[in-house]
Amino acid sequence: MTAVRIDGATRLYAIVGDPIAQVRSPSVFTEAFATRGANAIMFPAQIAPDRFDTVFPALKALGNLDGLLITVPFKARAVPHATRLGATAQCIGALNALRREADGTWTGDMFDGAGFVRAAQRKGQRVAGRRVAIFGAGGAGSAIACALAEAGVASIALIDPQAGRAAALAQRLRPAFPGCRFAEATAPPADADMVVNASTIGMKPGDGMPADLGPLAPDTLVGDVIIADGPTAILRHAQACGCAWVNGRDMHAGQAEAIVSFFDPAARDL
Amino acid sequence: MTAVRIDGATRLYAIVGDPIAQVRSPSVFTEAFATRGANAIMFPAQIAPDRFDTVFPALKALGNLDGLLITVPFKARAVPHATRLGATAQCIGALNALRREADGTWTGDMFDGAGFVRAAQRKGQRVAGRRVAIFGAGGAGSAIACALAEAGVASIALIDPQAGRAAALAQRLRPAFPGCRFAEATAPPADADMVVNASTIGMKPGDGMPADLGPLAPDTLVGDVIIADGPTAILRHAQACGCAWVNGRDMHAGQAEAIVSFFDPAARDL
Repeated sequence: MTAVRIDGATRLYAIVGDPIAQVRSPSVFTEAFATRGANAIMFPAQIAPDRFDTVFPALKALGNLDGLLITVPFKARAVPHATRLGATAQCIGALNALRREADGTWTGDMFDGAGFVRAAQRKGQRVAGRRVAIFGAGGAGSAIACALAEAGVASIALIDPQAGRAAALAQRLRPAFPGCRFAEATAPPADADMVVNASTIGMKPGDGMPADLGPLAPDTLVGDVIIADGPTAILRHAQACGCAWVNGRDMHAGQAEAIVSFFDPAARDL
Repeated sequence: MTAVRIDGATRLYAIVGDPIAQVRSPSVFTEAFATRGANAIMFPAQIAPDRFDTVFPALKALGNLDGLLITVPFKARAVPHATRLGATAQCIGALNALRREADGTWTGDMFDGAGFVRAAQRKGQRVAGRRVAIFGAGGAGSAIACALAEAGVASIALIDPQAGRAAALAQRLRPAFPGCRFAEATAPPADADMVVNASTIGMKPGDGMPADLGPLAPDTLVGDVIIADGPTAILRHAQACGCAWVNGRDMHAGQAEAIVSFFDPAARDL
């Protein structure tokens, strides 16, 4: 582990959320900054939801704070606090990273999906052309759908038990990605060769899969957003079927890489 | 150096000021927390003076922030943000440390003077009964005068070129410490056996002493609030006269000790 120092000249990054004690970003990013030789840390900041709209702008007002990560439940509420949005954040209406530009304005974007695509590519997996099924059309599902469409998948079937949520997401994505087919669905289509769990199923130890998937063809790529101590039920199933897989930790690492680059002062105001 | 870690469960302390890059407290306190085995850090927070009254309460609203240090120019402006004040802060109308109590209220106090008294005692120097001259009746001078009076000095002569400032401080201290004589003065009284520089003279490399002190009796204790790379002119004079002395670093170390105890969760709500 790289030695971390904090002094008066240390530049600040914070991750805001509620609760906050479980987040891994403070150690991951602080370590990444130290590795790059930057005098910077990321600290956890717990904000009560009813104080968000006053506390969040105040953090942005700290003169030595250069960037923010935003986690549950603030990813959508952070949007009006950005001066400008990247394409994914614009499409989804949520963001998870904000950086201060040299002129004092703030650029926000959403990297939840980019982390997944980066993690799949790191495992040598082709993404373009895939026929995808995603469980969960909430924040994580939206971000992954957007990133996969941007990466050139052929189709995305969105599965969400909450009435209208999958249809609404499909409708939002269609104009942005005319080359990708979007549909709401109740189960993965028969020809799907990529299945992603972006729901919360698997977070609790006794959870099963988001649906009975039956046998999977071995060229199916299986992804799961859940960060758990062991493999979740859907990933155990993927392993049993001989499929490649990407877990929550892989996505988190892919995303951290992407955001460290986004935060890099050399990349500002591009 | 003790290894510093930051994770989601790390408890926060911040030092607020403007400018902030020069402060030593982040490294001193982060190190002290680590030595005590606490998962806690102190980070520097630069607040523009025109944003203080909104940004400061927002920092206090962070659910995982347990304490604040306040430095220039906010020591007086922080007072209304405390739920209750210690005796020194009350007397001076300024504070430099605030801690969150278990019930969510905030206790503030001023340790600038306590650090000086602690540093003198650490050097084996008697404080009680001394006849003191203090240069500077601003924030640092007020705090030191208050702490010395509390520690039982016999008299304090206050020297400040800004009209009325020394007299106003003397007037504020008299009712709180009836056992100590306070006077405004233009030079140290002939019988003074303690001389303290609490002005900014000595901060710039070419600065001389706050006044021509002439030869000092060797039992005179000389203090200087300035933190400089080498001894300031007044401390070089003290050394030449064979006097004991306390410099800005000693005071800072004494103060850090006192505040780490004040911040200790075991000491809360006593």
